[in-house]
Amino acid sequence: MSQFLALLAQKASLVDEALDAFLPPADRHPAIIHEALRYSVFAGGKRLRPALTLAAAEVAGCPERKVLPAACAIELIHTYSLIHDDLPAMDNDDWRRGKPTSHRVFGEAVAILAGDALFALAFELLTRGGRDAGFEAGAILQVTGEVAAACGTSGLIGGQVLDVVGANRGIDAAELEFIHRAKTGALFRAAVRAGAILGGAHPDTLRRLTVFGEYFGLAFQIADDLLDVTGDTATLGKPAGSDARNHKHTYVSLFGEREARRRAQEACAEALAALAEFGPEAHFLRHAVEFVATRDF
Amino acid sequence: MSQFLALLAQKASLVDEALDAFLPPADRHPAIIHEALRYSVFAGGKRLRPALTLAAAEVAGCPERKVLPAACAIELIHTYSLIHDDLPAMDNDDWRRGKPTSHRVFGEAVAILAGDALFALAFELLTRGGRDAGFEAGAILQVTGEVAAACGTSGLIGGQVLDVVGANRGIDAAELEFIHRAKTGALFRAAVRAGAILGGAHPDTLRRLTVFGEYFGLAFQIADDLLDVTGDTATLGKPAGSDARNHKHTYVSLFGEREARRRAQEACAEALAALAEFGPEAHFLRHAVEFVATRDF
Repeated sequence: MSQFLALLAQKASLVDEALDAFLPPADRHPAIIHEALRYSVFAGGKRLRPALTLAAAEVAGCPERKVLPAACAIELIHTYSLIHDDLPAMDNDDWRRGKPTSHRVFGEAVAILAGDALFALAFELLTRGGRDAGFEAGAILQVTGEVAAACGTSGLIGGQVLDVVGANRGIDAAELEFIHRAKTGALFRAAVRAGAILGGAHPDTLRRLTVFGEYFGLAFQIADDLLDVTGDTATLGKPAGSDARNHKHTYVSLFGEREARRRAQEACAEALAALAEFGPEAHFLRHAVEFVATRDF
Repeated sequence: MSQFLALLAQKASLVDEALDAFLPPADRHPAIIHEALRYSVFAGGKRLRPALTLAAAEVAGCPERKVLPAACAIELIHTYSLIHDDLPAMDNDDWRRGKPTSHRVFGEAVAILAGDALFALAFELLTRGGRDAGFEAGAILQVTGEVAAACGTSGLIGGQVLDVVGANRGIDAAELEFIHRAKTGALFRAAVRAGAILGGAHPDTLRRLTVFGEYFGLAFQIADDLLDVTGDTATLGKPAGSDARNHKHTYVSLFGEREARRRAQEACAEALAALAEFGPEAHFLRHAVEFVATRDF
């Protein structure tokens, strides 16, 4: 597990450097929005999603640095979704990763616009950044279209809708799976596929990496649900037990801790199996699965 | 003027038909978000921006139907920005085009997510829709990158930031121009350029259409500022005088009605001049300028 964190830190520092270069300077007019963008982007994210993009490119035989614009776009989209999810009208969270949330610092109006701006910037990075990196236009278009779809009402936004309007309402296992597949799975899948497609992966490699991304996203989400129950506030950077207080549906609330743990292990096994044909180039991805499997739950 | 409205109605009906086909059905799961998308998209918009995309393609010699996905993407972005601008944390408007705003009907959370979803769908339309329409990948990428930039902090979002945080604060003419260029001008410019670029416009044609788009956007914005002062609630579909009540900076508040009117006429003259070299293919664009020049202010 600590080996994974060291590998992740290497990739995260590449991502941080690139994000710093891609984001407008904090004093550019109008300064308040650029401060707000940097505040949330550099609020201590682990950079797991962009690291998956870099790692998928490596599996495809492409240098990881080349896909940094797409990797950063994925992280900007993740950050945008957190800013909007934390808003008073949504989950009403005051803390995120141990820091006050964007609307607590900049006010609701600027927080909404900061989310919007990260979304827009992500698509600038995917398109113009992809061109600057020298990728073929067809591959960039494919990735941009997939990322847009992953954000839409059958992805990120659809999952959040159900999460917000579905709280306090009974749901079944199929609905929970829909929510999690949309809310978390879609972006993990898109992160992995972006690296693979831009990296020029062979169709068979792309197919395996896609399966990996789906199961990894599922394992990660269940682990997250478990951590909200078993973790403490200091580790989480936000109050533990917030899912239960907000009447959120989770794998734990629906199946209990024991079954949730079993399902997480099962998803990890499937994710590892999808990597079976790869050699040392899938080193990072294998460690990522082990890390999720042994997270502190 | 009435001739222009007839020409616009033709283009608007093409756009409406295409929007209906591109938007997910209202009963697709999760239904509330898809209802919210359709509610705002079909709330009586005049479709002026997408009509400019169609008209620019025609000037470039491309059939207008071919650029419908890009034209619809522009309209979705316009609609997203209206939904977010109307939110309680922003302009707090309860009415838009004579109907209750999205957050009044669906609640704030769904309204925020509906805006986000239209934004995401716009980029799906630009990329996948552009591909389906048979455009060359490089041209689609160019347009998608420009539209993303037009939405960002030096465009739509930057203008809205200044509009929201700048109210109640003194500004000068340069700042007002920045706000309007960003908030309105960027999307008009992008709408025209999208049609021209996808339509395969000669560089000289593209340059002229870009100048047209910039002056047309400016004229439109000043006319809008004037209408808020001189129009009545029934014509506007929202309470007249709302700019003054919200302490918004407008061409009227800064320069007075007389000078604002003079600047609108000047911008119209420049927009027409940019079309001087074109023949009957610029018929619609010329009528659009005349319409703005004679709007009821």
